[in-house]
Amino acid sequence: MTFLEKLRGAARANDSLVCVGLDVDPARLPRHLADGPDPAFRFNRAIIDATKDLVCAYKPNFAFYGAMGGRGWEALVRTVEHVPEGIPVILDAKVGDIGNTAERYARMAYGEVGADAVTVNPYMGFDAVEPFLACPDRCAFLVCLSSNPGSADLQRLRVDGVPLYRIVAEKAVAWNRRGPCGLVVGATHASDLKEVRGVAPGLPILIPGVGAQGGDLQTVARCGADADGELTVVNVSRSVLYASGGEDFAQAARRETERLRADLNRYRKDGV
Amino acid sequence: MTFLEKLRGAARANDSLVCVGLDVDPARLPRHLADGPDPAFRFNRAIIDATKDLVCAYKPNFAFYGAMGGRGWEALVRTVEHVPEGIPVILDAKVGDIGNTAERYARMAYGEVGADAVTVNPYMGFDAVEPFLACPDRCAFLVCLSSNPGSADLQRLRVDGVPLYRIVAEKAVAWNRRGPCGLVVGATHASDLKEVRGVAPGLPILIPGVGAQGGDLQTVARCGADADGELTVVNVSRSVLYASGGEDFAQAARRETERLRADLNRYRKDGV
Repeated sequence: MTFLEKLRGAARANDSLVCVGLDVDPARLPRHLADGPDPAFRFNRAIIDATKDLVCAYKPNFAFYGAMGGRGWEALVRTVEHVPEGIPVILDAKVGDIGNTAERYARMAYGEVGADAVTVNPYMGFDAVEPFLACPDRCAFLVCLSSNPGSADLQRLRVDGVPLYRIVAEKAVAWNRRGPCGLVVGATHASDLKEVRGVAPGLPILIPGVGAQGGDLQTVARCGADADGELTVVNVSRSVLYASGGEDFAQAARRETERLRADLNRYRKDGV
Repeated sequence: MTFLEKLRGAARANDSLVCVGLDVDPARLPRHLADGPDPAFRFNRAIIDATKDLVCAYKPNFAFYGAMGGRGWEALVRTVEHVPEGIPVILDAKVGDIGNTAERYARMAYGEVGADAVTVNPYMGFDAVEPFLACPDRCAFLVCLSSNPGSADLQRLRVDGVPLYRIVAEKAVAWNRRGPCGLVVGATHASDLKEVRGVAPGLPILIPGVGAQGGDLQTVARCGADADGELTVVNVSRSVLYASGGEDFAQAARRETERLRADLNRYRKDGV
């Protein structure tokens, strides 16, 4: 089964474009979890159990686990293992390095962590991406245009009139012939998202930046989805994970995920 | 003590521009090490013990540890702990993510791993770099121009006639006013290295790509060093680590490091 088939399968089974970003921050864990063993994993397990019929993917960001050291590594691996078989896991690590090193990252992401896909920084070019394309059942999501203010520093610079992020999107389409590629595009600007979807009509687009970062659901659903209203992975982290800081955090996360799923579905169905 | 003071101190004490890249690959470990506990750490420990009076820095690349899973994490932390106090450690992880996530990577690199510096991918712009600049005794080395063929895909594109890697070098000079920045520039093209050194006369430049990747020592020493023949960190990994695959690997690594140090010193002293 290809990554796209797995993603489509989960999105259809759960009728959802929502991806929950498992960015667990020890400082924000509910108090009652903090005292036991492996609180980060127990938190994630409860979030997954409460949302697994509502999402199309999960996306742990490696930084949050790396910042916890060896315990973080273990929490990450246990978390990925806990995700139900049919739901893809995207490891958000924005890796990018020369060929023999990129091959090690592919082994880390796909082998040790057990992710179905990984985010890759395209700045070092094709041979830094190629090792992630070698597995037909995985996917490399190239960082194209991010939702932060710094996206203006390089991503929006123009090369012969064409913004760099668009060049990245064009490269992803070309490289997708070598192995499965996707794109990461921030949720903050409708016209940019529309432009990238136009360049890459058949690639999955991972969209961070809704929720805490302020991106708008209507934009995301209308401009990000493909012609069938699919292939969009809308990531929310903080607004779901920390919907409540109390013992009811998992139920609160479920309610917030349900709300996002319903809103996205309304807009994507209107929009198609 | 700032990172630059620490780097200069080690470089002067050991009269060396050589950085040994601790990119340990389980498949290439000498056989006699493979059977005991934590072979990656024992390998690194022997390499460090054999070269610590010959180098200006050590640079473990995170990919090699991540590919070993939890054991790799432990080997990395133990390795960094084993580096003598006065020698800086650059964690090569080419991280880059939005602000709150970058802050987690800074905590990982500087806190959990205990590195003095970290390599950062600049594609996401200033706020993705800023958290790494918050510590005056650390340093963020921005990936500017890499030594792989893929560097042509984005890094060499021209914005109003100026190649993107030069824009990154200019940004590093500007951002260095906010906190310590360095640059990563591949060893493969003399003129590029000269150009970047011209743009950033006072920044440390980390130069991978000599040894197994074929960069030339004379170019590196003459074009990379600052006006005093310093602030250049010339990384070699495979040609030192695997100079011998036998029980004499550490002595062979020492001999190769000595040779590189002598060559670089001859060229930089000629060149100044």
